[in-house]
Amino acid sequence: MRLAMAKADVEDDVLTYDPTARKLENEMARITGKEAGLFVPSGTMGNLISVLVHCEIRGSEVILGNNSHIHIYENGGISTIGGVHPRPVNNNEDGTIDINLIESAIRNPDFELCYPKTRLICLENSHANSGGRCLSVEYTDRVGELAKKHGLKLHIDGARIFNASVALNVPVDRLVQAADSVSVCVSKGLGAPVGTVIVGTRSFIAKARILRKTLGGGMRQVGILCAAALVALQENVQKLVIDHRNAKILAEGLNKINGLSVDVASVETNIVYFEILKGSNITALKLRKIMDEHGILLMPDSSSRVRIVIHHQVSASDVQYTLSCIKQAMTGVTDDENGGN
Amino acid sequence: MRLAMAKADVEDDVLTYDPTARKLENEMARITGKEAGLFVPSGTMGNLISVLVHCEIRGSEVILGNNSHIHIYENGGISTIGGVHPRPVNNNEDGTIDINLIESAIRNPDFELCYPKTRLICLENSHANSGGRCLSVEYTDRVGELAKKHGLKLHIDGARIFNASVALNVPVDRLVQAADSVSVCVSKGLGAPVGTVIVGTRSFIAKARILRKTLGGGMRQVGILCAAALVALQENVQKLVIDHRNAKILAEGLNKINGLSVDVASVETNIVYFEILKGSNITALKLRKIMDEHGILLMPDSSSRVRIVIHHQVSASDVQYTLSCIKQAMTGVTDDENGGN
Amino acid sequence: MRLAMAKADVEDDVLTYDPTARKLENEMARITGKEAGLFVPSGTMGNLISVLVHCEIRGSEVILGNNSHIHIYENGGISTIGGVHPRPVNNNEDGTIDINLIESAIRNPDFELCYPKTRLICLENSHANSGGRCLSVEYTDRVGELAKKHGLKLHIDGARIFNASVALNVPVDRLVQAADSVSVCVSKGLGAPVGTVIVGTRSFIAKARILRKTLGGGMRQVGILCAAALVALQENVQKLVIDHRNAKILAEGLNKINGLSVDVASVETNIVYFEILKGSNITALKLRKIMDEHGILLMPDSSSRVRIVIHHQVSASDVQYTLSCIKQAMTGVTDDENGGN
Amino acid sequence: MRLAMAKADVEDDVLTYDPTARKLENEMARITGKEAGLFVPSGTMGNLISVLVHCEIRGSEVILGNNSHIHIYENGGISTIGGVHPRPVNNNEDGTIDINLIESAIRNPDFELCYPKTRLICLENSHANSGGRCLSVEYTDRVGELAKKHGLKLHIDGARIFNASVALNVPVDRLVQAADSVSVCVSKGLGAPVGTVIVGTRSFIAKARILRKTLGGGMRQVGILCAAALVALQENVQKLVIDHRNAKILAEGLNKINGLSVDVASVETNIVYFEILKGSNITALKLRKIMDEHGILLMPDSSSRVRIVIHHQVSASDVQYTLSCIKQAMTGVTDDENGGN
Repeated sequence: MRLAMAKADVEDDVLTYDPTARKLENEMARITGKEAGLFVPSGTMGNLISVLVHCEIRGSEVILGNNSHIHIYENGGISTIGGVHPRPVNNNEDGTIDINLIESAIRNPDFELCYPKTRLICLENSHANSGGRCLSVEYTDRVGELAKKHGLKLHIDGARIFNASVALNVPVDRLVQAADSVSVCVSKGLGAPVGTVIVGTRSFIAKARILRKTLGGGMRQVGILCAAALVALQENVQKLVIDHRNAKILAEGLNKINGLSVDVASVETNIVYFEILKGSNITALKLRKIMDEHGILLMPDSSSRVRIVIHHQVSASDVQYTLSCIKQAMTGVTDDENGGN
Repeated sequence: MRLAMAKADVEDDVLTYDPTARKLENEMARITGKEAGLFVPSGTMGNLISVLVHCEIRGSEVILGNNSHIHIYENGGISTIGGVHPRPVNNNEDGTIDINLIESAIRNPDFELCYPKTRLICLENSHANSGGRCLSVEYTDRVGELAKKHGLKLHIDGARIFNASVALNVPVDRLVQAADSVSVCVSKGLGAPVGTVIVGTRSFIAKARILRKTLGGGMRQVGILCAAALVALQENVQKLVIDHRNAKILAEGLNKINGLSVDVASVETNIVYFEILKGSNITALKLRKIMDEHGILLMPDSSSRVRIVIHHQVSASDVQYTLSCIKQAMTGVTDDENGGN
Repeated sequence: MRLAMAKADVEDDVLTYDPTARKLENEMARITGKEAGLFVPSGTMGNLISVLVHCEIRGSEVILGNNSHIHIYENGGISTIGGVHPRPVNNNEDGTIDINLIESAIRNPDFELCYPKTRLICLENSHANSGGRCLSVEYTDRVGELAKKHGLKLHIDGARIFNASVALNVPVDRLVQAADSVSVCVSKGLGAPVGTVIVGTRSFIAKARILRKTLGGGMRQVGILCAAALVALQENVQKLVIDHRNAKILAEGLNKINGLSVDVASVETNIVYFEILKGSNITALKLRKIMDEHGILLMPDSSSRVRIVIHHQVSASDVQYTLSCIKQAMTGVTDDENGGN
Repeated sequence: MRLAMAKADVEDDVLTYDPTARKLENEMARITGKEAGLFVPSGTMGNLISVLVHCEIRGSEVILGNNSHIHIYENGGISTIGGVHPRPVNNNEDGTIDINLIESAIRNPDFELCYPKTRLICLENSHANSGGRCLSVEYTDRVGELAKKHGLKLHIDGARIFNASVALNVPVDRLVQAADSVSVCVSKGLGAPVGTVIVGTRSFIAKARILRKTLGGGMRQVGILCAAALVALQENVQKLVIDHRNAKILAEGLNKINGLSVDVASVETNIVYFEILKGSNITALKLRKIMDEHGILLMPDSSSRVRIVIHHQVSASDVQYTLSCIKQAMTGVTDDENGGN
């Protein structure tokens, strides 16, 4: 991948010239079955731009999961930067939202004087906060029909859409067929160093390109990053099956460690969430600190909930190493050591 | 009241000169036990200004009920105009929010890179969408303590705080003691023609005054409206008991009409919500239209849910008249007539 | 006027019911030759709503005078609340902006990647900061043609459009014929206690009504204020000629006072600006304070520039009284007294 | 440089781990004499974040040149995304702004009810739109003193601060000593593929990091880009002298071509602006198109003004080639060919 980056054919991409960026964007459009694509620096920007383009008129509201990445982990940017009003509705444990809940959250245009205007529904597939669980093509299609019926747009935060595609054994373009836009990360499961590609209609992408410039996400010779992403698309998608298998093994292993609990059945892709049970003499932050010293990256989500993500550079033996380190940490911590936090 | 308005001593209030406005603001500050007050044209502006002053720094989040007036009925203005990110949590049927739900929604400042900063909690008392139910002083105090513990502010949408005060038999200043700011309408239950007074610390009100000007809510010789509000405070608060009694009678009457359903026990103040049951040959909009012709104002909340609000100009016989008109409408509508909607 | 207010026929205007408000809005639409009108609490809100409706899409730019009321005196609300980017161009001393300056400020859509999109031009007639000078109908028409040619909208801040109409002897509807929207104050020269009416197409007003609610400018029984405005329209427009004459007399008088300077020729309507010359032992704030004690309201614009506005309640003898008070203040102030500021 | 990129030591930079990014940020902080630095994807984001951090409170105004990059070429993002109100004041031809113009644009806090609050002054050095002219250290210091006197912050858009430093022969840290923050591009004159580093106090950078995440500018393994920037800092700064010499030669050459005009004396760094004189049968867009075919990138600024930028990969012979291509284009174009535009 680094070789490809070193050799990448680049030009100034702010001016839409960079040939490698064009190649990546077209390739992603092809894979997702959309008209056009745009490379952006991060998944957060991919979602932010997508929501803001669909909600370009002041007074817009977006319906999204109360446990979605956009609502929880993106600094509230759609409001604090974009002035879009979120209408969160409850996510189920599997990352779906009940269709009737979505429908009842759509604002009645007859009462426009006190209601913002619903313009967008957002889904997330796979759904990170539920532990990487996948939305089926049937569910996605039904939400798409609902959106169409009410004249709304559907955006899918597809940061890990390749994981969902592999886990469900459904091609990506079919899985996102109902969506007006999708944001796909190349730097998460796919292993490229940086970036996300958003896809949609040509007109959507034209507006997205302007907004990318406004936000400062237009980069000059970005082909270097895009070359890596092209390699990732070619080589790493097929490795996701292995990641999912390793995640399952990790989940089973963690579940056997005293003081930890994992819902193994819910591990459908490459994310494993575990709970540190009450009574354990360790906090998530403390555990993260210890694991840092072992070169293992944990993401605490709260004082007791921790996320581990598997990617293609994590081997089966890395999983075993991780399990033994965590087991040791869970056993070895004394009240004294933990007291510092 | 109109006489008082006609005689009101007025000056340009944008420049903080109007003596009648000053008198009203001071009176409301006294009643609510806060340092200072500010007259604004509407409850929506009162809430908007209050949220925006507490969340004056970009990147703020506010925790509020998913069924609160601010979240549902104010056009999403805190986001679409103010760029504040709402974090709605589920309201209970009585208008409260579980304290532990509020606490778990407060963002952990350790993860500030992807979390907006929680700066405010909003309550609503009485809670309109639950049918005017009242938050107790104990509940309010507990939320206030939670806010203080986490360095947050507490705003109370007290559009109908006098109704709550009367229904709970607790003085207003005690009821809102835990709040950093309160927005109190004089044009709803109190019967003045226009306006809301927000109260808080002197520094809060100084910022609110600037924001009122920015929003265009600064009015010139506003004393005319404030004179009416002063009369309302003096004369109409005591009449609220009668409104509550009439609301109860209305609720009981509606509940007996075929095709309608009311949760009579939940009618604590002056608001009555009724459901048009499935199978009825009438929609909320249609019913509203018919009642319009009888001079009765209904507020449909959805195609089957309707709100009626009692105020001091609605007498016991008006209630009976309303009941008979609605009963007639529920009986008389045929498929044909309803078809137009 | 107060009698009319006391007798006004009112209803809840948030729900578009108030008959007196409807009457005022229709009357103002008729006078200005536009389709529809909307009553709002202040001139600031009138301009804010107008700019925001024309610039409802994120990424909009408005061209306006660098010395216009919107740019200087409205808290920057179009940006800080509305996210609209202002492109100020230099006002001439008479309140006009060179047409070619306006044209060269219009963004070339070919470079949309780094340019915001120009959507609106704003003029102000009469132009407050130039001392109430009037834009001619020819000038206004030419700007209107330019706007049309480039697909832009034209908004006129007509807070004092009646003064301009009277001074130029051109009917209001002709004077604003080229405008897509106009904001007309009834509480400045016209002498009603509160309010502004914005006018435009029906579709513009429909959007304005929603935004008024969002900002909190929707008021309940607002007919009380509108009744006063209707009286003002009927009775006070004809008195503006007298105001203009009094302003001229005031200007001439001030110009004769030692230490003050007025450009008498530029006093076309009811506004008089005077400069406190260097070497005078008094600041604008100090002078304002002294005049306050005499019941005369001055508006300091800087440490040396002061505005006086004449309205129909200021008589010829009030003007003489004002002149003698200011003359005394300019003479009597010693270094000691002034030292406090 | 590509070798360095291929070998870069990287980690997830969103979590502040990437060692190469840390190294670059520290190095830039050292060079500019500031406490800390932050890598962002573009100069636009660098400026946007800087302005938004200094203006984090709603209601802020920034004073900046009416011809500055931030005001003209960044989509109006500080308003349309950040809600900051710009107060542009006239740039002189050399990129400076008269100090007294700046001072008179600072809002008087005594009139806070209708004035936004001035919080920031922005300068640009070298100043792109004036043709890359440099602000002296004396001028910058004086603006810094003014800012300090009024409690304002000073931000320098230093996209080309190294060019200014080299042209003025003043070390960068001395040149920006008066600034609270500086945004420095590594992808313009310095020749790295992507990126900008903003510098300021530790507290400024901490807030900037959060905002970078909000905007979506946080990138994962960003060390690859930072490695290139480190090489650029080490190797390319010294080459800027040659760029400046080549720019001068280009300017002189262009000025000799019929139909073109260049102010040669104003070419202080690496930017050359030329005017296509009236009467030439060619537009800027047409010329750009022709030059594209010769592999030469022109940036039309209007229909008659064109920018060429010299960087270290443009050799003296490239300059001669460019001159001969443009000369040919200016001679050879017929009305017919030009008609298409």
